[in-house]
Amino acid sequence: MSEGIPGEPSERFLRACQRLPVDRTPVWFMRQAGRYMAEYRELRQKHSLLEICKQPELAAQVTLQPIERLGVDAAILFADILLPLIPMGAQLEFVEGRGPVIANPVRSKADLTRLRPVNVEAQLDYVMEALRIVRPMLPDGVALIGFAGAPFTVGSYLIEGGPTRKFERTKSLMYSDPQSWHALMERLAGTLSDYLVAQIEAGAQAVQIFDSWVGALGPADYVEYVQPYSKFIFERVRQTGVPAIHFGTGTSTLLPLMHEAGGEVMGVDWRIPLDRAWELVGADVGLQGNLDPTALLAPRPVLQRQVKRVLREAGGRLGHIFNLGHGILPSTPVEHVQWAVELVQNSTEHGQELGT
Amino acid sequence: MSEGIPGEPSERFLRACQRLPVDRTPVWFMRQAGRYMAEYRELRQKHSLLEICKQPELAAQVTLQPIERLGVDAAILFADILLPLIPMGAQLEFVEGRGPVIANPVRSKADLTRLRPVNVEAQLDYVMEALRIVRPMLPDGVALIGFAGAPFTVGSYLIEGGPTRKFERTKSLMYSDPQSWHALMERLAGTLSDYLVAQIEAGAQAVQIFDSWVGALGPADYVEYVQPYSKFIFERVRQTGVPAIHFGTGTSTLLPLMHEAGGEVMGVDWRIPLDRAWELVGADVGLQGNLDPTALLAPRPVLQRQVKRVLREAGGRLGHIFNLGHGILPSTPVEHVQWAVELVQNSTEHGQELGT
Repeated sequence: MSEGIPGEPSERFLRACQRLPVDRTPVWFMRQAGRYMAEYRELRQKHSLLEICKQPELAAQVTLQPIERLGVDAAILFADILLPLIPMGAQLEFVEGRGPVIANPVRSKADLTRLRPVNVEAQLDYVMEALRIVRPMLPDGVALIGFAGAPFTVGSYLIEGGPTRKFERTKSLMYSDPQSWHALMERLAGTLSDYLVAQIEAGAQAVQIFDSWVGALGPADYVEYVQPYSKFIFERVRQTGVPAIHFGTGTSTLLPLMHEAGGEVMGVDWRIPLDRAWELVGADVGLQGNLDPTALLAPRPVLQRQVKRVLREAGGRLGHIFNLGHGILPSTPVEHVQWAVELVQNSTEHGQELGT
Repeated sequence: MSEGIPGEPSERFLRACQRLPVDRTPVWFMRQAGRYMAEYRELRQKHSLLEICKQPELAAQVTLQPIERLGVDAAILFADILLPLIPMGAQLEFVEGRGPVIANPVRSKADLTRLRPVNVEAQLDYVMEALRIVRPMLPDGVALIGFAGAPFTVGSYLIEGGPTRKFERTKSLMYSDPQSWHALMERLAGTLSDYLVAQIEAGAQAVQIFDSWVGALGPADYVEYVQPYSKFIFERVRQTGVPAIHFGTGTSTLLPLMHEAGGEVMGVDWRIPLDRAWELVGADVGLQGNLDPTALLAPRPVLQRQVKRVLREAGGRLGHIFNLGHGILPSTPVEHVQWAVELVQNSTEHGQELGT
């Protein structure tokens, strides 16, 4: 690890974000803090998801759990991409077995006018406070990641009122009332970028923007209805000097357009091999991913084979950050996640060649 | 339309399947018979979905409804991809608002041994009978399509016991008990190919194989766990001389591999523009698609723009069959579907150039 060069970070995760040489591939996992961990489940018996998010000490505690258990290279703040909707006026609840539910979804111009402006510093201070608590508690070499949802993905929850497979109401608003659609995207882009900048000021050393569901769109719709708003957010983050990861699932055909919108690192899922993703975005971009989270449910030899495939497809390129293609599943055994971390650590140390 | 050449079909849909010149682009829609139609909803007040499927006269009646209302170029038999699971022993029900539910899913070697062998001619004769009724009732020039699910997609329902977003149990079986996985795929490939051949003998002039959810996999898993079984099916269909359409959603990175498995025509969704899909599979393959079904909910000018984009991306190539990227949504207004048909008919007549 080439430490001490002025202006260069020493944390291997941050070095990879800048495509600087690293002693081994950095690794962390989306939803690395969560229900698959006994210590998290124990806390959830006493507190709801929203309670944990809103109490900075608890959020900080949960954020640190996987750092201790897994030895990953980055901590991601424990929070939810829908938190910024609460001060906007959304009645958000997390319903067991169903996920987030919004009792008063936005489906018309009239609904839109009821959305309130947000002062993120004041109204989401609990998130910033959690970051301020976590940052000095992190072990040396571990970086702190902040995050927000992207306007399309956050907007789709607000419109649908919950998880969806078809994005029927989202696309209907987009196609049938483009004026309201664009107004909503603009509003979300403003609030979400304020939120990211505030997180960076509170200590986040990198941010990830989750456009998890944008793969529901084709390229032309992405360009017309989504890209300008994502671009706005990445531009504001870029001005802070902190690296941004741009993540989505099922984005094979959108990847060059998403990269155009912004991000020093693109996060991709297992549907696109990393070598192919690099062909699409160019070698001057970092890539994060892309193990299938269900591979973490598999027996050790199968998991090992899948991890090695990801590393082989990454081919030791500068700017690879090992991660999943989506979040850790609640049914995942913790040991399997530990195996994956060890395997990445042992297979990529000193840039050693990877067998097939 | 070049009729009368020996060995060449006269129906424009079948001509397009063979990449023969057509007077205009053929058009039909997945789920063109269904809940968005008043005449179907009326019938459903008296009969369940399974009752309609199992009574050949009713299935035939529903199959013909969109032919009368829309003037499409092909009729697809009204049935469900999960019907072949019933004689295998699956307790299949369609639950309002949830979709298909299988009370006794297959999740282990023991479950697998309880699956019964199927005599499709005897046990699914109601499907063949419906085809025999429909075929002579079709107007001149309208072709009859039979269909089946592909082993992965049908298998995923059988394993999950219903619709899923994550395919957690499916992939778990695949990774953790590959022997049972391969045994299940083999069993399904046998039954599903028997079923397709029987449909062809009963009058289906083309077949579509729905691997609707295979886009949940990455390319390496597709090759290892799925492709051999899909290949087996397409090989058996190929021997009948009837064209096959190979359909899936979210398949951008799988498309060349799916094409390798088989299909004279590849069915793709709106996530991949047709010109790009053609680059991936080569010009000697037909393509079917790929309007976003939610575009049929949009006002006329937006719908028109989206239909024209699909036609522009198809670029008047031989072998384009206009369709959606997935099934018609129940909330779709019938007039919108009619607009789309008229637009395709009027925009592509005599191969006229398409404006932007």
